[in-house]
Amino acid sequence: MFQGAYSSQLLEDAVNQFASLPGIGRRTALRLALHILDEPQENVSRFVDAFRALKSDIHVCGRCFMISDDSSCPICDDRTRDHSTICVVESVRDVLSIENTGQYRGLYHILGGIISPIDGIGPSDLHIRELSERLKDGSVKEVILALSTSMEGETTSYYLCKQIGAFPVTVTTIARGVGFGDDLEYADELTLGKSIVNRHPFNTL
Amino acid sequence: MFQGAYSSQLLEDAVNQFASLPGIGRRTALRLALHILDEPQENVSRFVDAFRALKSDIHVCGRCFMISDDSSCPICDDRTRDHSTICVVESVRDVLSIENTGQYRGLYHILGGIISPIDGIGPSDLHIRELSERLKDGSVKEVILALSTSMEGETTSYYLCKQIGAFPVTVTTIARGVGFGDDLEYADELTLGKSIVNRHPFNTL
Repeated sequence: MFQGAYSSQLLEDAVNQFASLPGIGRRTALRLALHILDEPQENVSRFVDAFRALKSDIHVCGRCFMISDDSSCPICDDRTRDHSTICVVESVRDVLSIENTGQYRGLYHILGGIISPIDGIGPSDLHIRELSERLKDGSVKEVILALSTSMEGETTSYYLCKQIGAFPVTVTTIARGVGFGDDLEYADELTLGKSIVNRHPFNTL
Repeated sequence: MFQGAYSSQLLEDAVNQFASLPGIGRRTALRLALHILDEPQENVSRFVDAFRALKSDIHVCGRCFMISDDSSCPICDDRTRDHSTICVVESVRDVLSIENTGQYRGLYHILGGIISPIDGIGPSDLHIRELSERLKDGSVKEVILALSTSMEGETTSYYLCKQIGAFPVTVTTIARGVGFGDDLEYADELTLGKSIVNRHPFNTL
């Protein structure tokens, strides 16, 4: 975008770093970098320190792989939660989304991605073995699969089903259907079809 | 967005920092922060270092206020440029945009903003006095005003005109009109009106 008379390698470096973030183009990256340049020194220090601390100080739970600020996991170590149910998700973000609904009180297991041969991600790159480990003592009764409905997500779900089939757990998956407030006419056929097939008695909603 | 079971202050800090950038909402900020978390340590270090270096190592030219990597200004110190013309702009970004056209070979003067009483920005907050200083030795023959056409921009242009009226310089402003490739029917009345009033002989384009 700024060939030739680009006056600053420092600016270009900062633009490149912003542009490396997902969904940030070079034009936006330039705007952000110039914003940083205009900020007072203490704000920039705070900005920089937040990311350094995020990366270096955060703890990852050795059981569920959720992040936390100290070595205890706020979810696994919460005795008021239902320790007989594990919800399997792809990422930290999914945990935050589900927690945000306030509808789930069980534990989680973050896979760290989904099986994707195109991206070179196989089962051994994910936390699948660790999930099996958690099922060994027999205290877990239900595993809820909450992976995406993409081909990779479905493949991962089937693979997990086979892997944990040897344990005496019920494997369930989250309901798919037309969202609340969505018009039927705008729902895609697959979603609407699933909604009809998976209908349930009205009062148990 | 993540009240209650927000598991990490470190993550929240990083989200807040991203969300403080212009045009970045909290949802995008969370996506970016989780992206940072997934990156290898060396990438995060590079990310953080680029912004620290941008803020601490960059030089601002004492004449035109353009940024550069070392103490010499790549524009002011370029003897091949036309030192008798100064283009007055609001920000570094404007200099980059004009340089990018390849159509201008004079010098610049970055005001650092425009007069905006609502934002508490008066003439003394801008580099206006420094512009007058540059005109004192009589070597500058033309000052081009390239400020925005907002009320604040126009106010600043008029103020500058009065301030530098005492010097023997020609004050000009950049042409406004319908953009290349734009349809006349979609141009606003003010722009189209300016285009007609400021028409010029066809071959001098």
